[in-house]
Amino acid sequence: MAEKWVLMVTAQTPTNIAVIKYWGKRDENLILPINDSISVTLDPQHLCTTTSVAVSPTFTHDRMWLNGKEISLSGGRYQNCLRELRARASDVEDEEKGIKITKKDWEKLHLHIASYNNFPTAAGLASSAAGFACLVFSLAKLMNVKEDHSKLSAIARQGSGSACRSLYGGFVKWIMGKEENGSDSIAVQLADEKHWDDLVIIIAVVSSRQKETSSTSGMRETVETSMLIEHRAKEVVPRRIIQMEKAIKDLDFPSFARLTCSDSNQFHAVCLDTSPPIFYMNDTSHRIISCVEKWNRFEGTPQVAYTFDAGPNAVLIARNRKAAALLLQRLLFYFPPQSDTDLNSYVIGDKSILQDAGVHNMKDIEALDSPPEIKDSTPMQKYKGDVSYFICTRPGRGPVLLTDETKALLNAETGLPK
Amino acid sequence: MAEKWVLMVTAQTPTNIAVIKYWGKRDENLILPINDSISVTLDPQHLCTTTSVAVSPTFTHDRMWLNGKEISLSGGRYQNCLRELRARASDVEDEEKGIKITKKDWEKLHLHIASYNNFPTAAGLASSAAGFACLVFSLAKLMNVKEDHSKLSAIARQGSGSACRSLYGGFVKWIMGKEENGSDSIAVQLADEKHWDDLVIIIAVVSSRQKETSSTSGMRETVETSMLIEHRAKEVVPRRIIQMEKAIKDLDFPSFARLTCSDSNQFHAVCLDTSPPIFYMNDTSHRIISCVEKWNRFEGTPQVAYTFDAGPNAVLIARNRKAAALLLQRLLFYFPPQSDTDLNSYVIGDKSILQDAGVHNMKDIEALDSPPEIKDSTPMQKYKGDVSYFICTRPGRGPVLLTDETKALLNAETGLPK
Repeated sequence: MAEKWVLMVTAQTPTNIAVIKYWGKRDENLILPINDSISVTLDPQHLCTTTSVAVSPTFTHDRMWLNGKEISLSGGRYQNCLRELRARASDVEDEEKGIKITKKDWEKLHLHIASYNNFPTAAGLASSAAGFACLVFSLAKLMNVKEDHSKLSAIARQGSGSACRSLYGGFVKWIMGKEENGSDSIAVQLADEKHWDDLVIIIAVVSSRQKETSSTSGMRETVETSMLIEHRAKEVVPRRIIQMEKAIKDLDFPSFARLTCSDSNQFHAVCLDTSPPIFYMNDTSHRIISCVEKWNRFEGTPQVAYTFDAGPNAVLIARNRKAAALLLQRLLFYFPPQSDTDLNSYVIGDKSILQDAGVHNMKDIEALDSPPEIKDSTPMQKYKGDVSYFICTRPGRGPVLLTDETKALLNAETGLPK
Repeated sequence: MAEKWVLMVTAQTPTNIAVIKYWGKRDENLILPINDSISVTLDPQHLCTTTSVAVSPTFTHDRMWLNGKEISLSGGRYQNCLRELRARASDVEDEEKGIKITKKDWEKLHLHIASYNNFPTAAGLASSAAGFACLVFSLAKLMNVKEDHSKLSAIARQGSGSACRSLYGGFVKWIMGKEENGSDSIAVQLADEKHWDDLVIIIAVVSSRQKETSSTSGMRETVETSMLIEHRAKEVVPRRIIQMEKAIKDLDFPSFARLTCSDSNQFHAVCLDTSPPIFYMNDTSHRIISCVEKWNRFEGTPQVAYTFDAGPNAVLIARNRKAAALLLQRLLFYFPPQSDTDLNSYVIGDKSILQDAGVHNMKDIEALDSPPEIKDSTPMQKYKGDVSYFICTRPGRGPVLLTDETKALLNAETGLPK
């Protein structure tokens, strides 16, 4: 083992947005939830984490860099994931490079990990979900862990609960499980990303001046103090899980939208029922909801579902491209960019939705008509600057290995960040 | 009955703020609630309705004026109250004026009603509670209705649910009752206004650009769509009612504050769990809550309780005058008036609290130190203009007759508004 080789794997893992929410743990250390949850995986082209993991006999200790900055791996969540993976590592042999690592070697060998989000970490877009999923997925490949994705999801879960749902594309259920050791608290795929191809997702990244309660402490406080959370977890969610699985299976958008919106609102309701109360949505979030509710009612059937995680950002799921273009028109009408903002940086991701909406420049935004559902009523106020930017995306695939070495975040010789 | 006399009564009735909330009806017409509620009656010196009611053989139909403007009495709620009162009217004799009205005459005689709020009707300060309570109280006096206040409360309840609680001063419980006809859905006094003399109440009237859902339609939608409201009404509130009665009896401010804040938050939680969701609180309401929560935590024991009705206004109950002065300093620090505002119109009601806070002019507001609980943390932002004005008040008495004729709102000869 005195050689100087570096063995490396690079992977890309999507983030996900829950449509039936996870809020509340029954085990803080193992991260076991008090109810099942269901999520949509988001297209990694627009929102993903890329992680390179490397092993070398020259590494002196485990190290990690997140978005180029070294961070500590001493936290219990990282340690739990690393311990679980090392326990499941197998022999690895690379004849070409003359590398041979036995199962036992993994206990002594050190790792370098570099991770990068292709979206702002601070934007509250579940970066930890994609991050831990990618860490576990890439290390499992490197270490030749022979477990399937569901087993890996139980490891990723110990890094960040919702990370387990990022191990699959499409629609994913996190089963809460019953075992005390968490072995059956795993993610399973309900349908892949091709199953419901029509859906288009627009994320409104909402400007916020408030410091938000972390979801870890927030959900702990809810479980400890809310008088409604138990009823939600035991009575409401189990029924919604069944209904949501059916809605996804049947491509039943009205039911999907009704369940998604109701469950997002109920999650924020139990946050408000917490002592002291937790507010994640702000006036801008409320206005986006009102805009969607008004439009859906006007159309007679839901065009768009909304869901909000532990922050003010809206994730809007449109039934198809046409609805997405009409939604984007409404969003740009109510929330035009500041005059010094470039349209190209105000709507990012899949810009073809912007084309469909007929918006090619800032003048087109100013020229947008007020939506028909508010015609004849008092002219709606506009809220310039209340949204930072929009991301257009869609349901996407699960984790993939990146074999293109130029995508690696670590140098293949040194194992240090490029 | 061909005479030209006018018989008149004038009364003043307080408004009230619920500390255990009423939200949801089991009978829409009779206005029967799905849970008990408890309120504090507010000092009528600062917030009340004055109503004059008159009867004369010359009146050709029932008429009503609210704040000087004639309004229709054809609504079911007015009709229910008038019918119930006429059915209970007794003989009235005024020997001096030579007036004699028999029980039977009331069926044919017409009424004039003039009502006036000493606070802005649109400010969302439960004007309908004081209004219907005053209507019923004054008409009962005029018509010589021999029922006690509890029986009258059951009539006022049919005008506006929370009106029944305005028939008493101090602390009042509205018992939901079990009878289908609503006869046992009445208000009872838990303690009079002298029982807990220390309390001081500051109301922050919050600027709002949103049109709010009326509480009538809001609570109907909650009952129809929330998955949490039934659990709240059947499991949570009954326990809180017992605890709140004990806290009031024992003058136990920490328990009173904890229950008041939790129940306000839970009421807004079930509003959020409604489909479509109802938002009554806005970012300013949230900031007021954060300010109070932070201060209470800093002090180690609650100094102030907050509660919000169907709108963004905060009702803040301070444990005593000292806490109220410290609260007002904080409120004026975070929410200073616009520079063109007069301090005299920015803090109204009991201005002695302003003196206690050491604030005599606008310069004193600018000179306010940031509260110690936020010292050493990032300097807190100020929100100039987000509060319209503050009202300083206290728990107050129930309805009273005004015998001073100059206070009457109707002309004693013509029975028309002065």
